[in-house]
Amino acid sequence: MIIQGKDYRTVWMEGNLVKMINQPLLPHKFGIIELKDYNEVHDAIKTMVVRGAPAIGATAAYGIAQAVLQFKGSLMSELEAYLAEVNEKLSQARPTAQDLFDGINYVNKKIMNSDTVSEAKDRAATVAKDYADRSADACKKIGEYGNELINENDRILTHCNAGALATVDYGTALSPIRMAHYSGKRIFVFADETRPRSQGSRLTAFELVEENIPHAIIADNAAGYYMRKKEINICIVGADRVAANGDVANKIGTYEKAVLAHENNIPFYVAIPLSTIDLNSETGEDIPIEERDEEEVLYSYGWTRSGNFERIRTSPEKSRAKNPAFDVTPARYITGLITPNGIIMANKEEIAGLFE
Amino acid sequence: MIIQGKDYRTVWMEGNLVKMINQPLLPHKFGIIELKDYNEVHDAIKTMVVRGAPAIGATAAYGIAQAVLQFKGSLMSELEAYLAEVNEKLSQARPTAQDLFDGINYVNKKIMNSDTVSEAKDRAATVAKDYADRSADACKKIGEYGNELINENDRILTHCNAGALATVDYGTALSPIRMAHYSGKRIFVFADETRPRSQGSRLTAFELVEENIPHAIIADNAAGYYMRKKEINICIVGADRVAANGDVANKIGTYEKAVLAHENNIPFYVAIPLSTIDLNSETGEDIPIEERDEEEVLYSYGWTRSGNFERIRTSPEKSRAKNPAFDVTPARYITGLITPNGIIMANKEEIAGLFE
Repeated sequence: MIIQGKDYRTVWMEGNLVKMINQPLLPHKFGIIELKDYNEVHDAIKTMVVRGAPAIGATAAYGIAQAVLQFKGSLMSELEAYLAEVNEKLSQARPTAQDLFDGINYVNKKIMNSDTVSEAKDRAATVAKDYADRSADACKKIGEYGNELINENDRILTHCNAGALATVDYGTALSPIRMAHYSGKRIFVFADETRPRSQGSRLTAFELVEENIPHAIIADNAAGYYMRKKEINICIVGADRVAANGDVANKIGTYEKAVLAHENNIPFYVAIPLSTIDLNSETGEDIPIEERDEEEVLYSYGWTRSGNFERIRTSPEKSRAKNPAFDVTPARYITGLITPNGIIMANKEEIAGLFE
Repeated sequence: MIIQGKDYRTVWMEGNLVKMINQPLLPHKFGIIELKDYNEVHDAIKTMVVRGAPAIGATAAYGIAQAVLQFKGSLMSELEAYLAEVNEKLSQARPTAQDLFDGINYVNKKIMNSDTVSEAKDRAATVAKDYADRSADACKKIGEYGNELINENDRILTHCNAGALATVDYGTALSPIRMAHYSGKRIFVFADETRPRSQGSRLTAFELVEENIPHAIIADNAAGYYMRKKEINICIVGADRVAANGDVANKIGTYEKAVLAHENNIPFYVAIPLSTIDLNSETGEDIPIEERDEEEVLYSYGWTRSGNFERIRTSPEKSRAKNPAFDVTPARYITGLITPNGIIMANKEEIAGLFE
């Protein structure tokens, strides 16, 4: 992705350091954060310095590679025991994103295929980079397929940030939007603010500004208004996990927008790499939904006039909040899944077909 | 309503001053603001120092009474010309709330019924207070009828603030909730945050805290989640204007919640005094929808750690926003209207029946 005219990925490795864009500072400050060990990688995922299912997957992959490079032992059996700890820690960073487990599994398998610890160390960084490259390529393909769904003058709703910042590069939902824009189509994007963490107004809007894509931020409450007025004619979102039957877990509010799109006969697409699909979750009901700290709802986070990053209280001191981070959208509300292998229906047969 | 143990109304008059609760400071600071003339009354409505359709209506009524008391002329024809200006100014404060016009019409009719200016002056304050008293009584009746819909252990969703602060007293949507609570029913309220102005987390939560009613604030995005999980079993909201056919204009997002309630077979009620009904609007499409400043979406407003009221930017400097303040919910999504005359269907016949 282009930021301040320079090409970036969301996460990468340099020597023994995992580096990533510091997302909580966006859109007002662009900075890179360096993580020194897998505990810091865990914390960065947990506290949402990096977020978005594919980006979390790649971050975990790099975190494991880093752990291998820092490993002090000499026996493969010791490395195995050590990696079990690392995997366990990283797996617990966040519960919903399927890509986290996909990234962990991918690098473990490749690394544990080594005969010696030194071979594993030689291999670690490359394996993690391979995972990230494949992830970026998958997103690029999502963009190419998804672009076919977008017409001149389309007005597109997206929810949360399923952009380059939620992946290694390109994005999932934003990849078709980028491709449509660069292929010369005139489009307009409605970016849901996406409370409580405001990834829409902070991150999606940031990406759209950097790439000069015409857009407006709207309160989450206003998406239905524009759908009913037919000022939105296609919706594209990402996902944190897709069940075998096509049910989709994604950022809280996705279910609301999908029902509203359905009610207004507006196509609703979910853009995902294969790493987001969990064949072990039969339906959406099997997907664990993360409940985050109520403070995210009781406060708002941003920048003051004097340029300080502040959290402000927008609720009474004595009020409590509930804060589910994701919801499940039943497959029946989803027009199709935009995958790196093409556009398919959100059903068991077509999803199984992706893995044949 | 009880605030800090004392009984308050949202707006009232003392001598030549219109006084009201300063709502933008809530929930963190409770204060009363004094308005010196009808221009200040206009500004208080326009900038949302007072908001909520019935409260706006009563405020306008007091503003006109104040203008009459301050009138310098001696001829009824002069008073008439002067009031035309006052009416014009106040009518333009906000476009959607029907009660604004109802309040203006009520006091004008009664005051212009006077034979002399001094009779009009004698009458002005009483007429405005009558309007406010009737408005408060209507809300009390809404509470009594609405309470019949609420059962022990109900989990109730409300959107925006249709509480005492949105009316003269009691509230519309919150009136049945208050009555249910005081009649000893165990209930739980989900208060939608209601971006961009956060009337849910700021005002509804404030009222619920003051009255010790169990509740949680949720992001607007989470209402659908709790409906799908059947953790909400009834929705009650207010309205800014109801068309002759039962279509309802209310705070942006109401349409979204109504569609979601319908999809999940959860009853969705709209609580209104008769002053909110506009028989001249045949359907919701005839109701003007206010578009407010985009800054409400681009920023968030609240209190910092150090106790300052601050606005913080939650979006890129170069992003724009769209900010419709209301939406229209078609009558077919509405289970019923809770009125001071009883609970009716949201249709032309039953609405017309209220005025027979």
